[in-house]
Amino acid sequence: MRIVVLGGGFGGMYTARALRRRLGAEVEVELVNAENYFVFQPLLPEVGAGSITPAHAVSPLRFILKDVTVRKAVVDSVDFARKAVIVFQGIQRRPTEVPYDHLVIALGQGTDFSRMPGLEEHALKMKTLEDARRLHIHVIEQLEHAQVTNLPDTKRGALTFTVIGAGFSGVETVGEMKELIDRSLPFYPKISPEEVRVKLVEFAPRILGEMPQELADYAAKHLQKHGIELMLETGVKSCTHRQLVTNKDEVIDTRTIVATIGNAPLPVVLRMGLPLQHGRLKVERNLRVEGREDVWALGDCALIPMKEGASERNDFAPPTAQFAVREADRVARNIEAVLGGRAPEPFAYRSRGALASLGARRGVADLMGFKLKGFPAWVVWRAYYLALLPGLGTKVRVMLNWTLDMLGARSLVQLRSYRKPPMRYVYFRAGDRIYNEGDRSDGFYTVISGALEMDRTDPATGETVTRRLGPGDHFGERLILGATRRRTTVRAVEDSKVLVMNRQEFLMLAEGFEAFRDYFRPYMEKHGVELPGAGSDKEG
Amino acid sequence: MRIVVLGGGFGGMYTARALRRRLGAEVEVELVNAENYFVFQPLLPEVGAGSITPAHAVSPLRFILKDVTVRKAVVDSVDFARKAVIVFQGIQRRPTEVPYDHLVIALGQGTDFSRMPGLEEHALKMKTLEDARRLHIHVIEQLEHAQVTNLPDTKRGALTFTVIGAGFSGVETVGEMKELIDRSLPFYPKISPEEVRVKLVEFAPRILGEMPQELADYAAKHLQKHGIELMLETGVKSCTHRQLVTNKDEVIDTRTIVATIGNAPLPVVLRMGLPLQHGRLKVERNLRVEGREDVWALGDCALIPMKEGASERNDFAPPTAQFAVREADRVARNIEAVLGGRAPEPFAYRSRGALASLGARRGVADLMGFKLKGFPAWVVWRAYYLALLPGLGTKVRVMLNWTLDMLGARSLVQLRSYRKPPMRYVYFRAGDRIYNEGDRSDGFYTVISGALEMDRTDPATGETVTRRLGPGDHFGERLILGATRRRTTVRAVEDSKVLVMNRQEFLMLAEGFEAFRDYFRPYMEKHGVELPGAGSDKEG
Repeated sequence: MRIVVLGGGFGGMYTARALRRRLGAEVEVELVNAENYFVFQPLLPEVGAGSITPAHAVSPLRFILKDVTVRKAVVDSVDFARKAVIVFQGIQRRPTEVPYDHLVIALGQGTDFSRMPGLEEHALKMKTLEDARRLHIHVIEQLEHAQVTNLPDTKRGALTFTVIGAGFSGVETVGEMKELIDRSLPFYPKISPEEVRVKLVEFAPRILGEMPQELADYAAKHLQKHGIELMLETGVKSCTHRQLVTNKDEVIDTRTIVATIGNAPLPVVLRMGLPLQHGRLKVERNLRVEGREDVWALGDCALIPMKEGASERNDFAPPTAQFAVREADRVARNIEAVLGGRAPEPFAYRSRGALASLGARRGVADLMGFKLKGFPAWVVWRAYYLALLPGLGTKVRVMLNWTLDMLGARSLVQLRSYRKPPMRYVYFRAGDRIYNEGDRSDGFYTVISGALEMDRTDPATGETVTRRLGPGDHFGERLILGATRRRTTVRAVEDSKVLVMNRQEFLMLAEGFEAFRDYFRPYMEKHGVELPGAGSDKEG
Repeated sequence: MRIVVLGGGFGGMYTARALRRRLGAEVEVELVNAENYFVFQPLLPEVGAGSITPAHAVSPLRFILKDVTVRKAVVDSVDFARKAVIVFQGIQRRPTEVPYDHLVIALGQGTDFSRMPGLEEHALKMKTLEDARRLHIHVIEQLEHAQVTNLPDTKRGALTFTVIGAGFSGVETVGEMKELIDRSLPFYPKISPEEVRVKLVEFAPRILGEMPQELADYAAKHLQKHGIELMLETGVKSCTHRQLVTNKDEVIDTRTIVATIGNAPLPVVLRMGLPLQHGRLKVERNLRVEGREDVWALGDCALIPMKEGASERNDFAPPTAQFAVREADRVARNIEAVLGGRAPEPFAYRSRGALASLGARRGVADLMGFKLKGFPAWVVWRAYYLALLPGLGTKVRVMLNWTLDMLGARSLVQLRSYRKPPMRYVYFRAGDRIYNEGDRSDGFYTVISGALEMDRTDPATGETVTRRLGPGDHFGERLILGATRRRTTVRAVEDSKVLVMNRQEFLMLAEGFEAFRDYFRPYMEKHGVELPGAGSDKEG
């Protein structure tokens, strides 16, 4: 008898634990997860703010799941007929089949920004540990940059930080981020506090929609008092790497956009072909996937009715860690029941309340209707999550980190920044500069859509010649010739999408593809550059 | 009066500190570094082994350099005539000029693997914090993979770890790495200790060339006792991502190659056009760059004669932290002297000894001729470097980390692995499989050089057809059609170099380049795939 759990978050990890505790040694429990660690999701904003290091917000699954088989692998698909999960393990390209008798799906949710052009390419997320780590690096990078730049526009963009979505994740992220900035500024003497702008953008008319109004009001006041601007009833239309455009067509110069919105089913869940509702797996009240005897789902990827005929949003279990932990217990009990020939029972749980930290040692807490604000709420927040952390080692490490953090300045260390893939699409708004004469040459561009203008000043006459560029046109070719500086200035005259690649990529393509090489050869030859060629070079 | 220091390692950081202490407020001291932190280089092997977290092996330069202007920027070039350093700051593409009156070059060294094909692409380094972090992730990834794979060849490659170069860095890295593996194995029940092979490859006939023979012998015995195989008098010829080929044409199946060899001048130092000797800047005994009044150099990038008429290797200062710190003091004194109209003095220092940790709480130490081995040497090693760590906060954090590490298992957390750029060259040796039928489709390939064979089995007849592929040929196109599994098997029949890209890159190229699109259109159309096209599509 084999039970396979997909996903190692709160839902999956606690399910595997409970199953192991409840079932005898004749039942094998296996957990499949893309990472080999459990992420303590509520700590991600603190990782983003550098108050704890990434390694301390996670715990190796092998440590916390004794006698559970942990398989680090990416789930590709499920063959329900043959009762097998198809996974890819590590660097291996050969698929591996993992057979099951009962399957538990706890894969969580993904994001979909497709309705907001540019967001996928330019916004940071707060879903994974890597996201949080990247946010910390990114914020410090902006401070470093603002410290040295002489360009006022660049400085304003670098010092404007925007968080989209004012749920728990957005509010905690914006609060922690502001605290990181405030505590770092003494080390950046050329940045004055008034130059820093931090914005929280929310489509609804209030923040913390899941919290009682009174606490949300307190939280809003606290954030505003600490210099965070709330932009309520505001949606996001699009963004570039320099600007955010709202649904009211307001344009914000900002180089930091953190998107905590846009939840959507993961591609692997969609591929399973199971019934979905509101983008989540349709399950019965007992957490069994509709129409399946041996497949269960819980956590953020499942839509769990809390009563018969559920239809309103409040009739379903909210996607929180608190609920996922309870759902895990119910799934484990129900599988035990089914294995013992008994009927599974419906999931029932009443929220014990909600907690949010606001940064600067303040929080809000709603505990069984008992409301806490400010410092006490923050203490409860920390204590609650510390208690929930799996493993004594992790608890101790996080506590030590917190203590050190209170004693001194937060870490300003900007670890290696996340490298964007060199070949990628970049979006520009009408009026944006792509580059100026004299700038570093760091990309070769191809216009996909829109229109741009290139100004070239003749050094002898001082005359400027302007050339229009449209779809299919290229610019920045001199990079390939080894040029390190731009000789022209390029501006977008319409909203434009361009493909950018670096010199190495261009040369690899020229070496690999005859058609590509032939296309660029006349230009390169005119400039005396020989493109590398594979053996298949054309004659003549 | 402005003094600009390039580089924030031991040489640069300590120079800036000493200058600040010696000179009055009318002299501005500025330090330019690509990262905003000082890396404590001797701790990198411990970061690689996961016994301390990356953030604790570094210290923000802004913390440790009070009243020094810290500029996070990449040095592009130096205009010696105009006395200005040209830098690029952060994401900014516009060059910035940093004027100086005296310039101190302490940029360290880079690597050059060009004589060993495949090493640049497939070997890990141990130069930067990111390198060390990546090594830890990589080692855990191999254990995770060995735990789940059913393929004996894959398991053997995953469990073979190779370090090239048996200087301080190589010896400490191999010792720490072995300890990480030994302490992690209890959590990987499917790996037996005998399956793990750790090799140290060294061209010289002995390890730790800079240490007295007696200590090197002890170190060699210690490493061997702990299961590390020493391959002396062995050079490296080439490697792929699966194998290392020695200069004796021995082939080692290994997926982990750490190269601590191949020191070479950094491109930026070469671009300066200053006199070089043995790949390092030629300086006078007073650390002034030959032929320059206002340019100084120290640390690994400089070749510093310790006596008149220096010619033998031992006549020059060795590239160690110990020497760099003393050189920094001399540069600062000499600049002070020159500013005061006095003559600079030659650098003079006698090594106080050498230290190396060997893993498993053992070390070797040569202190002013007094030799220590084993546990006492290891304690001295830790104490010495703890004392050298700048800042109390960092000292405390590293000590706490060490303590926690002694109490429990090392962190098995495999943070997000380093993503290779999707478009890249990959090398295969004759006989290597590129992929097998049924494998995951994850790349589109173009042959640059060599020869491969593709086997395709007709599902109806069971007959296998073999096609030969040479330079300019493509394979794996079905990926573009959305195929997720391979239908063929491809093997290298000669040593081959191929260009690989992923589906997204292919589609971006098709959208951006007409010539590319036209070339692949017939194939795609035959399979009913419409390639995306920019507005410049050809008619008809």
